[in-house]
Amino acid sequence: MSKIIAINAGSSSLKFQLINMPEETIITKGLVERIGLPNSIFTITVAGEKKKETREISNHEEAVQILLKKLIDYRIIQSFSEIDGVGHRVTHGGELFKESTLVTEEALMKLKPLAELAPLHNPANILGIKAFQRILGNVPSVMVFDTAFHQTMPESSYLYSLPYQYYQEYGIRKYGFHGTSHNYVSQRAADLLGKPIERLRIISCHLGNGASIAAIEGGKSIDTSMGFTPLEGVVMGTRSGSIDPAIIPFVMMKTGKSVDEVLTMLNKESGLLGISGFSSDLRDIEVKAEQGDERAELALDIFAGRIQQYIGSYSARMNGVDAIIFTAGIGENSATIRARVLNGLEYMGVYWDVDQNQIASGEMMISYPHSPVQVMTIPTNEEIMIARDVQKICNELLVLV
Amino acid sequence: MSKIIAINAGSSSLKFQLINMPEETIITKGLVERIGLPNSIFTITVAGEKKKETREISNHEEAVQILLKKLIDYRIIQSFSEIDGVGHRVTHGGELFKESTLVTEEALMKLKPLAELAPLHNPANILGIKAFQRILGNVPSVMVFDTAFHQTMPESSYLYSLPYQYYQEYGIRKYGFHGTSHNYVSQRAADLLGKPIERLRIISCHLGNGASIAAIEGGKSIDTSMGFTPLEGVVMGTRSGSIDPAIIPFVMMKTGKSVDEVLTMLNKESGLLGISGFSSDLRDIEVKAEQGDERAELALDIFAGRIQQYIGSYSARMNGVDAIIFTAGIGENSATIRARVLNGLEYMGVYWDVDQNQIASGEMMISYPHSPVQVMTIPTNEEIMIARDVQKICNELLVLV
Repeated sequence: MSKIIAINAGSSSLKFQLINMPEETIITKGLVERIGLPNSIFTITVAGEKKKETREISNHEEAVQILLKKLIDYRIIQSFSEIDGVGHRVTHGGELFKESTLVTEEALMKLKPLAELAPLHNPANILGIKAFQRILGNVPSVMVFDTAFHQTMPESSYLYSLPYQYYQEYGIRKYGFHGTSHNYVSQRAADLLGKPIERLRIISCHLGNGASIAAIEGGKSIDTSMGFTPLEGVVMGTRSGSIDPAIIPFVMMKTGKSVDEVLTMLNKESGLLGISGFSSDLRDIEVKAEQGDERAELALDIFAGRIQQYIGSYSARMNGVDAIIFTAGIGENSATIRARVLNGLEYMGVYWDVDQNQIASGEMMISYPHSPVQVMTIPTNEEIMIARDVQKICNELLVLV
Repeated sequence: MSKIIAINAGSSSLKFQLINMPEETIITKGLVERIGLPNSIFTITVAGEKKKETREISNHEEAVQILLKKLIDYRIIQSFSEIDGVGHRVTHGGELFKESTLVTEEALMKLKPLAELAPLHNPANILGIKAFQRILGNVPSVMVFDTAFHQTMPESSYLYSLPYQYYQEYGIRKYGFHGTSHNYVSQRAADLLGKPIERLRIISCHLGNGASIAAIEGGKSIDTSMGFTPLEGVVMGTRSGSIDPAIIPFVMMKTGKSVDEVLTMLNKESGLLGISGFSSDLRDIEVKAEQGDERAELALDIFAGRIQQYIGSYSARMNGVDAIIFTAGIGENSATIRARVLNGLEYMGVYWDVDQNQIASGEMMISYPHSPVQVMTIPTNEEIMIARDVQKICNELLVLV
């Protein structure tokens, strides 16, 4: 039995989960917020109870120090040596990292230039990695990339129709994100269906504040809706998803905004927030739509419509689909969105149970047993995937030693 | 019986077709090229024979003067008074023009601000309109808009997920193009199938150097792949189609190009040309692909793949489809592309005849008679649609008088 800690570090935050492997049971989890800002917040769940404290935490290294000390203070572990491995979520692995990778000096050197592709996320991820390295020393540390699962996409999926040298010289191509999540839920779907994943065509809808759809054939991602960046694809909380690129210079001309300001607008002021005019949170929008708010209704309509179109599109890509999965905040919890997405897909063999959809929670089938296309909700669990990859790589290290 | 002239004016060109109505027979057609440039070219087909001459033609008015004089010189008409109406293709009708419209001072006033939405095309279209007005005087003149057919799209199709005020203040929405073509071929499809168009769900693939796909339900466009501009949607000859909008600032940063230069690259150097690296002409690419050129093969793969995905997407939108139409240069003539698009759509009921596809020309069924989804090639004919609308409006004028 081993204890593995899964880490998701942002520029001013750090989420953690301590997991028993191979049992895959969560020992504790928590969150450090406002790192480097006044009134940092540390939260940890101990024996089901949330403990929260506000204090000064000036950088990631201090955050890690406090987090590890707390694990001992709360008697969750006796000493640091009990931690057998650390897994770090890393946003962008480019084309270099096609799978989870042990942190070495060489790997970090390779990772560095990819910051250009994910300027807000990769540097923060690296901060998290370095903080743990400094404090835990020799404990194996593994990078688990959000893009890696999609590295199986064929060139015909990932290549944009730009002059080819933009791909060769600047790496402009579709990378896709949420890979760890799509990977996890598609494996779970195969388990639940009792069929080998190699023989399934799956469409996975990861619908959170960020949202992406993936076409997964034989367990491999063959296409996904997010692209070069997480801006592309379906409508999201505050992101526009795909739009006519010619809109950018037109907005610049009309508003005097710079190109960066337009991009900020597309990332932060668009999506559900832009259409509804009042919130990026689907729950707020559902409430207002119920009350007859037309723009809220429109936001639901557009959000669900674009997802439905991706399902149609990826079905065409795979000549049909065996299973459709809904996951992440909205996918797991919004019966309204699921119903709107699934409505009118009988032509491709989707037959689903209205009541079952209404009460779905956790892992649950929404389709009728006889439906040619099975539909289900599966709570995503990226931390478990991270822990699995850490364990796998740790085991390989032991073999090598 | 009446003679109607259908006009398509570009900034330095003017295409014309003289049509007998209601017989819909073409009397003559031709083209003026390089207007306002050295060595302008005038071409006209007389009794099946192409006559070409090079001369100075300094502006659109002169082009129209020469064209009309030639009609008399070649004894195609005896006098200008035989021309009962002129129909002008106009690229952008915005939200103001939902159908073909008689040219009046008021209509031209309304049209003028729309130049902003189609800066390369609308002003040229207006030049053509004014030239005919000046020379033919009182002959009724009708504007037929490329966008009008798509004005039936619901808000959930045409609205981008930008802040709502960008639609209200600047008119940023999906307009769609090739409307006259999609309208024509969908009506022909209903005729060929012997079914009322009101009961059909049609996907029309207009694949020329520009390409767009439309979802047509009950004879009305409910969605289309081109958007705010003709840049969006599928891959085209030199246009990228949809890409991650975040690519624009990244390219600017990497290359030092201005935003307008990047847009020019997306419009003129991308698409089939960008991927293949040698041609925007599908015929060249098919030849090279046959010879084993990998990038040519990739271009075919991506081009057909994106079209196939739109077909899947629009099938989901309409809960299935009754007919798929291929039209325009590539749609009518490339058996290779049609085969690649149709391959693997059995899941939605597309069963087609490989031999029939190979020899298809003119109006022809490609699907098997028993196929739930009927597939066909239909040569587009925008001029006939223009002539029909001119005649309809002329008849209304007579009733009013």
